[in-house]
Amino acid sequence: MQLFEYFPIWDQLSSDWQKRLEQAAAYREIPKGTVIHSGELDCLGLVLVVRGRLRAYIVSEDGREITIYRLLERDFCLFSASCMMKNIQFEVTVETETEAAVWIIPPSVFKGLMEESAAAANYVNQLMAGRFSEVVWLMEQIMWKSFDSRLASFLLEESSLEESERLKLTHEKIADHLGTAREVVTRMLRYFQGEGLVRLSRGTVEILDREGLEKLAE
Amino acid sequence: MQLFEYFPIWDQLSSDWQKRLEQAAAYREIPKGTVIHSGELDCLGLVLVVRGRLRAYIVSEDGREITIYRLLERDFCLFSASCMMKNIQFEVTVETETEAAVWIIPPSVFKGLMEESAAAANYVNQLMAGRFSEVVWLMEQIMWKSFDSRLASFLLEESSLEESERLKLTHEKIADHLGTAREVVTRMLRYFQGEGLVRLSRGTVEILDREGLEKLAE
Repeated sequence: MQLFEYFPIWDQLSSDWQKRLEQAAAYREIPKGTVIHSGELDCLGLVLVVRGRLRAYIVSEDGREITIYRLLERDFCLFSASCMMKNIQFEVTVETETEAAVWIIPPSVFKGLMEESAAAANYVNQLMAGRFSEVVWLMEQIMWKSFDSRLASFLLEESSLEESERLKLTHEKIADHLGTAREVVTRMLRYFQGEGLVRLSRGTVEILDREGLEKLAE
Repeated sequence: MQLFEYFPIWDQLSSDWQKRLEQAAAYREIPKGTVIHSGELDCLGLVLVVRGRLRAYIVSEDGREITIYRLLERDFCLFSASCMMKNIQFEVTVETETEAAVWIIPPSVFKGLMEESAAAANYVNQLMAGRFSEVVWLMEQIMWKSFDSRLASFLLEESSLEESERLKLTHEKIADHLGTAREVVTRMLRYFQGEGLVRLSRGTVEILDREGLEKLAE
């Protein structure tokens, strides 16, 4: 869990910058369910995930959420350092979904690196392009896919993240991920249960028919 | 309409790069309604708008469109050079909405510039962050705003782009911008007309009550 093992373009940095980053970066272990970044004003710095899973989401004025992407091991969270990027005009909240360990690089240090190193700036470009693509994909899903298909995709994705068929998820939580109301989720899950796709019990959704869900998700 | 008058970080480039860009860039005048970029495989290059208006949009499998942003004078179109950016995984179509004049910089040249110049790479970062913010904003609108509010916003925006209260727009075209069906647009426009907000005639929407629309758009 040394910084250089996780930092993607380490070999392309000068030894001076490598030293500066090692001095400035802070290693943190964070409990599950901690909000590490919230809104525009907050500027924690660049977060590099060593272990665990984080969720980035946006929140509507009346408190509805939608997950825009997940961060896993070796992922970089750009938006926790949004102050260092001009033109980011939206508020993302980032929260740990499991116990997590991260490296945090202060915004001023990373900004300095980007200004001097074309490699670092291009790397950030790639990251942003990837996140951008995820958000466009999500928008396409919302616009053009039916809710049963989105819910099926979500359950399959959760199952692969958790490596389990038995998902500990309340309907409320699913609604927050998908940007909808709890009732809508409950109704569709009951329909899925009726079709033999899942089995529901308190706070748990168990996948019974993976192929059926995959067909729906297509 | 010299390149250096339009290229945003000209002063931060070496004279060698200034020369290379001037040699490589091509000036083009493009008729209204021309698709200049379409899909992932196409790679025209970086487009810098000198005059006119372009529209970037995505298309669903069954041909429905939604406008993700507009390009105006001095705007840069990154996605017409998506091949030069790793991780862009969505297909944008870019079309001229008016007669337009642009500078086109070949992808290989701009890629070379970004690799050598941190200033250029950071500038692209800023551009992408701005576009990213627009798409997140749009997604929030789709998720959380009602259609009357989105339609009112769209009419006001069109009116300011066209500098006119009389908009030449078919219901089909509005539906393409907003990612919905023509019937949905027609129904809502008739409701707007009933409320005295607009007057409809063949291929035209005339804004009668700007304040009323602004209230709806909020």
